[in-house]
Amino acid sequence: MHKVEYPLLDETVYYEKMQNGLQVILIPKPGFAKTYGIITTDFGSIDNHFVPLQSDSEIVVPDGVAHFLEHKLFEGEKHDAFDDFSKLGSSANAFTSFTRTSYLFSATSKVEENIETLLDFVQEPYFTEEGTEKEKGIIAQEIQMYEDNPDWRLFYGLLKNMYPKHPLSIDIAGTVDSIQAITPEILQTCYDTFYHPSNMNLVIIGNFPVEETMVVIRNNQDAKEFAKEEHILRFIPSETISDLTAHDEIEMDVKRPKLIMGVKGLTTQLEGNESDNYYLKGSLLMEMLFGRGSDNFNTLYDNGVLDDSFNYSFTIDRSFNFMALEVDTNEPEQVIKEWKNILLNWKNDSSFTAENFNLLKRAFIGEQLQAFNSLEYISNQYGYLYAAGIEMFNRIERLETLTLEDIAAFAEHYINEQVISTFIVKPKKGSNV
Amino acid sequence: MHKVEYPLLDETVYYEKMQNGLQVILIPKPGFAKTYGIITTDFGSIDNHFVPLQSDSEIVVPDGVAHFLEHKLFEGEKHDAFDDFSKLGSSANAFTSFTRTSYLFSATSKVEENIETLLDFVQEPYFTEEGTEKEKGIIAQEIQMYEDNPDWRLFYGLLKNMYPKHPLSIDIAGTVDSIQAITPEILQTCYDTFYHPSNMNLVIIGNFPVEETMVVIRNNQDAKEFAKEEHILRFIPSETISDLTAHDEIEMDVKRPKLIMGVKGLTTQLEGNESDNYYLKGSLLMEMLFGRGSDNFNTLYDNGVLDDSFNYSFTIDRSFNFMALEVDTNEPEQVIKEWKNILLNWKNDSSFTAENFNLLKRAFIGEQLQAFNSLEYISNQYGYLYAAGIEMFNRIERLETLTLEDIAAFAEHYINEQVISTFIVKPKKGSNV
Repeated sequence: MHKVEYPLLDETVYYEKMQNGLQVILIPKPGFAKTYGIITTDFGSIDNHFVPLQSDSEIVVPDGVAHFLEHKLFEGEKHDAFDDFSKLGSSANAFTSFTRTSYLFSATSKVEENIETLLDFVQEPYFTEEGTEKEKGIIAQEIQMYEDNPDWRLFYGLLKNMYPKHPLSIDIAGTVDSIQAITPEILQTCYDTFYHPSNMNLVIIGNFPVEETMVVIRNNQDAKEFAKEEHILRFIPSETISDLTAHDEIEMDVKRPKLIMGVKGLTTQLEGNESDNYYLKGSLLMEMLFGRGSDNFNTLYDNGVLDDSFNYSFTIDRSFNFMALEVDTNEPEQVIKEWKNILLNWKNDSSFTAENFNLLKRAFIGEQLQAFNSLEYISNQYGYLYAAGIEMFNRIERLETLTLEDIAAFAEHYINEQVISTFIVKPKKGSNV
Repeated sequence: MHKVEYPLLDETVYYEKMQNGLQVILIPKPGFAKTYGIITTDFGSIDNHFVPLQSDSEIVVPDGVAHFLEHKLFEGEKHDAFDDFSKLGSSANAFTSFTRTSYLFSATSKVEENIETLLDFVQEPYFTEEGTEKEKGIIAQEIQMYEDNPDWRLFYGLLKNMYPKHPLSIDIAGTVDSIQAITPEILQTCYDTFYHPSNMNLVIIGNFPVEETMVVIRNNQDAKEFAKEEHILRFIPSETISDLTAHDEIEMDVKRPKLIMGVKGLTTQLEGNESDNYYLKGSLLMEMLFGRGSDNFNTLYDNGVLDDSFNYSFTIDRSFNFMALEVDTNEPEQVIKEWKNILLNWKNDSSFTAENFNLLKRAFIGEQLQAFNSLEYISNQYGYLYAAGIEMFNRIERLETLTLEDIAAFAEHYINEQVISTFIVKPKKGSNV
């Protein structure tokens, strides 16, 4: 076990890598009532093409396996994991993203039992033909529900424009068709490869005794057997700058048109703190150009071009990154023109000053410090970021060192007309507006 | 046929896409005696993983197929293509790179016959068991010859450090083992996919009549049948910033140690003029920091740290780009330190001034203009760059617009310690130095 202190944040973090490769991270928060346990595997929806553990040849698995596996793990041979947590008076949850799957509990007592339950249900899979078939119906409904959601369609419409070959443009849950091909064998192969302890981390945050808890985890892990650790080789289709559709649109039953604009990043191999610094730069750039305090936002808002439905974000993860801007607007063409103009002329933007940058940076640091007070935020983010090689608690220090010149170099490199794409969900013609 | 004029260069280029997808480019040079014909396919050694034409499932082919195919195409059913060109009094050649294969002739007369011969031998493949087996022996010798070459080992040593998963680190010709698995069927599958006319271009440059020549090409192409054009989906292993070995070395029978340093680019999806502009920026940056006129070079040269064996380059192509510096030196560790120092402190470099930049840019433009006077240079480069979507003749205009700020943004983004790698070929211990 080694200990890292973050005096600036008054946080202490304990790390220990188990014999089997599992990375354990304990973050004690003595003043708090709740404890969260979260186990994360570096396996998400984009990992559909890889060389399985103890194999030489690559395989392609049906879209949606990571999410399917997340559902199936809760079903044990004798009991359902949700029930187990219920009996302990705690609650469980899980989520699958493009790149990772996490399982968590939150408890106010019996922390040790909760940790053991979490480790056991995730590490003792139980796949049957019958259970797999039954799950297909449940997940198909989930997929169809999302397909009726205009915001979801808007987002995936943009992803499809920007990433026509990359598995990012496929729904995390897969498609109603793709999941039909999932079998217990496929689940087992993915499980063996990506749920190997060396591809996972466990974070415990809250009110618990550090030494004793580590002993509980060590004992639990030592009693289980796993195959030898191997590097996982993953494949993605090769994309170029021209693999981007500049614009597309669909009609749905919405009252006002929904518009999304994306700026696709071409630098895709970043990881760890490099990747997080890229995130910070992209986020700060967007804040300067489009933030609620920017001249751009205020002008567009005052002119009635934008309203409070406006939102913007910078997303970065394993093998992709992009900026996104979205709004509900009756004048999507005008908004596209305005946004493009702002992006392409960032250099002459009235908000692009050292003074403004320093203000925004301070605000950003403030928000981040605020977030670090939330157990929920930390438990949701820490393991996710850790799996990406990112040290969350030194983000403030990394933020401090950023300069306006860094943001300028980022913008210079990131923004150009060829990587901009837009997607619109339009009201159906003849529908009631 | 459409015509593009470049008044600055006094060049006129004629373009026509054949019905079958072949892009034909005619560059008349009335004053010259020679004519070059060169046909290029967008298929090189890194394309070992793809979905074949008229198939739904991807395949992985043995390393070295593109190069093997280049050798085999010269062998026809009735005669050898080299002989055909000889009889016409012209000469033929071919080369395979990481991303492309080109076949060319140079002739002083009978241009039409030469063009037909070029198109026919490339478009009428002839693969037999016997011919394939025989070729394995020839290519294996070629591979072994290169393996004895210290410069070759140095370069591939660096590539292996920087691209452990990407097929770039595999010899263009494959390995003695990998080529054993090549069969006539594999050659045919690769041929059908990558030698589809829509994946190729033909450039004719020199002294020939434009209209008549285009008619000859059109007639030749119209008489042949090809499958329907399809987009080729290619795959590469997913790499991240940490897939880089910082240093490695081998021993060989050399007198002085050979050192190479690489800076691996993380932006890999650029194409067309964007990619070429990246090339120009990278090249100009290296020229500023390491050029023969730079303070760095002169200081290191005067101190005896570098000698005339010093060389540097910036390479960019489909799915990769990197800087490389190499030298023969008795003090590789010191040189590594000096080079790293120069790279990481580019911002404070005495050569990094607007004045120096403008001087170097003018010199670069001068060199480029000079190169455009050489038929050989144009014939070697035009089709290669065209396949990458790059318009060679507007390079000067693109160069003109580059500023010192562009280079700074490039450097800011490109250079960091994590993407630097070194490789040394050391003299064998106990050998005669």
